[in-house]
Amino acid sequence: MSVLSYEPLTPTSFLQRSAAVFGPRLAVVDGDLGLTYAELWQRVQRLAGGLAEAGVRPGDKVAVLATNGHLLLESTFGVPAAGAVMVPLNIRLSAAELAYILGHAEVSVLLHDDELAGLAKAAAEQSAATPRLVSGTAYESMIETARELFVPVTDELSPLSINYTSGTTGRPKGVVYHHRGAYLQALAMALHTRLEAASSYLWTLPMFHCHGWCFPWAVTLAGARHVCLPKVDPGEAWRLVRAHRVTHLCGAPTVLTSLLAHPDAPDRELDPRPLACVGGAPPSPALLRRALKAGIDVVHLYGLTETYGPAVICQPQPEWRGLDADEYAVLAARQGVGNVIAQPLRVVAGDGSDVPADAATVGEIAVRGNDVMIGYHRDPAATEQAAPDGWFRTGDLGVMHPDGYVRLVDRAKDVIISGGENIASVEVENVLTAHPAVQEAAVVARPDEHWGEVPVAFVTLAPGAAATESELIQHVRARLAHFKAPRAVHFGDLPKTSTGKIQKTVLRRRAAG
Amino acid sequence: MSVLSYEPLTPTSFLQRSAAVFGPRLAVVDGDLGLTYAELWQRVQRLAGGLAEAGVRPGDKVAVLATNGHLLLESTFGVPAAGAVMVPLNIRLSAAELAYILGHAEVSVLLHDDELAGLAKAAAEQSAATPRLVSGTAYESMIETARELFVPVTDELSPLSINYTSGTTGRPKGVVYHHRGAYLQALAMALHTRLEAASSYLWTLPMFHCHGWCFPWAVTLAGARHVCLPKVDPGEAWRLVRAHRVTHLCGAPTVLTSLLAHPDAPDRELDPRPLACVGGAPPSPALLRRALKAGIDVVHLYGLTETYGPAVICQPQPEWRGLDADEYAVLAARQGVGNVIAQPLRVVAGDGSDVPADAATVGEIAVRGNDVMIGYHRDPAATEQAAPDGWFRTGDLGVMHPDGYVRLVDRAKDVIISGGENIASVEVENVLTAHPAVQEAAVVARPDEHWGEVPVAFVTLAPGAAATESELIQHVRARLAHFKAPRAVHFGDLPKTSTGKIQKTVLRRRAAG
Repeated sequence: MSVLSYEPLTPTSFLQRSAAVFGPRLAVVDGDLGLTYAELWQRVQRLAGGLAEAGVRPGDKVAVLATNGHLLLESTFGVPAAGAVMVPLNIRLSAAELAYILGHAEVSVLLHDDELAGLAKAAAEQSAATPRLVSGTAYESMIETARELFVPVTDELSPLSINYTSGTTGRPKGVVYHHRGAYLQALAMALHTRLEAASSYLWTLPMFHCHGWCFPWAVTLAGARHVCLPKVDPGEAWRLVRAHRVTHLCGAPTVLTSLLAHPDAPDRELDPRPLACVGGAPPSPALLRRALKAGIDVVHLYGLTETYGPAVICQPQPEWRGLDADEYAVLAARQGVGNVIAQPLRVVAGDGSDVPADAATVGEIAVRGNDVMIGYHRDPAATEQAAPDGWFRTGDLGVMHPDGYVRLVDRAKDVIISGGENIASVEVENVLTAHPAVQEAAVVARPDEHWGEVPVAFVTLAPGAAATESELIQHVRARLAHFKAPRAVHFGDLPKTSTGKIQKTVLRRRAAG
Repeated sequence: MSVLSYEPLTPTSFLQRSAAVFGPRLAVVDGDLGLTYAELWQRVQRLAGGLAEAGVRPGDKVAVLATNGHLLLESTFGVPAAGAVMVPLNIRLSAAELAYILGHAEVSVLLHDDELAGLAKAAAEQSAATPRLVSGTAYESMIETARELFVPVTDELSPLSINYTSGTTGRPKGVVYHHRGAYLQALAMALHTRLEAASSYLWTLPMFHCHGWCFPWAVTLAGARHVCLPKVDPGEAWRLVRAHRVTHLCGAPTVLTSLLAHPDAPDRELDPRPLACVGGAPPSPALLRRALKAGIDVVHLYGLTETYGPAVICQPQPEWRGLDADEYAVLAARQGVGNVIAQPLRVVAGDGSDVPADAATVGEIAVRGNDVMIGYHRDPAATEQAAPDGWFRTGDLGVMHPDGYVRLVDRAKDVIISGGENIASVEVENVLTAHPAVQEAAVVARPDEHWGEVPVAFVTLAPGAAATESELIQHVRARLAHFKAPRAVHFGDLPKTSTGKIQKTVLRRRAAG
């Protein structure tokens, strides 16, 4: 007998509803393939059936190694529909790194794109687990013949997926999401970004990253269209934006920067006007201005793998519309406030107490609540260390503004300490990107015998623009305390992760070398 | 120690967040009074403190007898903030009816408007409970001096409020809502109606009815403005719509009908364009056309007190925008589908099985899930009877369309059985309101020796319009089977409940008399 007033929360229910309500509407566009919501739901249930026939039991781990496309999206619903736990994999990792994850998560089945068969095989062979490999081709056959299955969720706090961190400091850690958290975060994303059935969402963000910031579910609950993009190719992105009347996209600021720098970027306002949700690093004031000029609204989201992606939003205030571009950019580049389903964000001192909301006292950003991970998979010690008092420490340093908005000063590990003074790399980067010739900039510490550390800049110039090292150093000295100016400027492309985050670890090695 | 990944869901958290994020924004307009979100949250916490000082303990029941205004809105947050359970009262009930509710709910404190002091006193004196009375004036003093209090919710399935049904068939029943249900329903309402901080919500719906369809929380979570309207005065409503740039309002179709019939109704499209959410009865095709002509979008919501109000929405499909007015009206007047957080709606036969989705087979609409009541207060037998297999039977008869949308054929008790044939009163009413002279119509059964029952119509003519009884009967006979045409037409105003629902019980008595 069912219970009258209780149903476990699970984001899979959103697809079930959209299949019923928006059955004939186009749900997924992936190259030449188009799937309606009814077709997507049927394929998802057959995937669940196929996994069960392949021996997957509730609680088993199913990993997926794929670019943004129907296989990855279907797995996001189909693996939980089999009662299993999904492990999205970063396609840029090495076979050895993937092997570690497959073993640590005890993966029993690995679904992968045909194009990634070599990497999948190498990873499986090196792994302590012995996952069964299912290629894209085998996956299609499986869906072709399988019966439909949908295993209901009985405990909304049970694991939905395990998302491995990039592991820049040691072994990757497996961040466990529960059904309830993904359900609520998806509702929050749909509400904040005003997704609706007429919306069209371009997948510029890798779906495997923080489970796509919960947008696989947010887009689906709205009955909107998923437009897949296997890799960030700006020309192809603009083609899809125009062909599918894209209204929403997500990504790191560098992704938006590369889109806007492309010759196909719009030279007049698009209709409909897209909303770009940027996160992973703060959007520079220069980027915000550039986007608005191209007719793209930007909202700044902030979070980590441990917070289902965007637990924090720089909630736009209606009054901001009246501000001039510079005032607006300063406010909108902040990290902001907890989203509508999140607990209030805190900035805490070393003793766990809140710092004053004076926009000046630096503390560590701390979070908890329904959109914070259950914990690290098979690593209770790391979980305990990250959340000693039940509040997860993000490792990001920030200040609390009097209006309740948090501003990230820097990643704790990115702060440059020079002659005992702290230099926030973000501050120097924002000054550099405000220079008209600069497209992107990253500032890192170089060890220095006298000062301990000194700042060094890595800069990508805008297409066709020119600037010298001394000119850029002068530009910073004219605007910030002199000790914050870079001692050297290196020109060229910046190394990035698959999610478009600049790899400061790599730059630090270059700066030191 | 707090738990990392779990926080009980409670709609009070939405005010806490909006006070932090939208502190200086206007939250409530009530006559000359304006409150910001920061002020509203402070008053709410002081109300909680005042209630605790008055002896209210967690789990105690606090009733509120008030028109739409700051007192009722503040109580909606402040009573739960004291850990207590709110009992919103219908101001149109008699002292004896209220006395029954006060006793049945074991109310310990009764907050009331100064204007309702006589009714509150009479009700308290006749009641088995001995509630402490707090008038509007005393309430202000209490808030003036009380300390701030906020009792956190520890169990999201614990009671938030008890909402008494109108009790047309026997004693009113106390429908118990939990925190989780109100939280989720509010998110669904905000998402479906696209509430945002720039929105302005006009309180044409009584806040005490199904706890305002969860809009007290939905409007608040969006940081939008509550514009209070103590009673539906169309002239005052239009003044407020224009003064506060109203974007949203809710009510029974009759409320929208009376607004549109008023001389101050707009003769050109309003900016911003308001969205009217109608429920309690299906909007007639004629009303939908009239509203669209005045530049008002209409969405049809459906539900009962037992479903936190609108568990069901006639979800508009983007394609409907291209339809002509008649085709659109037929689709949009249906009850629709479960909202985004609701379980799928069912139409069941007597044995509890689903009827086919053929738009023809009539069954009873059945619901369950997070936005269905815990049960009837102190009445497990009635709860069991209403939900024999865990699915709540609404008492509404409907059909399932092939596109998954439910259409209500009639309230079970409003069906007219004439010569063994069923006549859906709604069907006859829709034909009558399509007549240009008819503003509103209600059709009820009159006992008849030969036929068992025959249909009789009660009609309000549009201002300045004229029509005869025989003309209207002919109008129906020309469009429906002859046995469905009313045998008599009575002209005049229709009796309505405080929520604008036509009181068919009263009309049946008149028809029989």
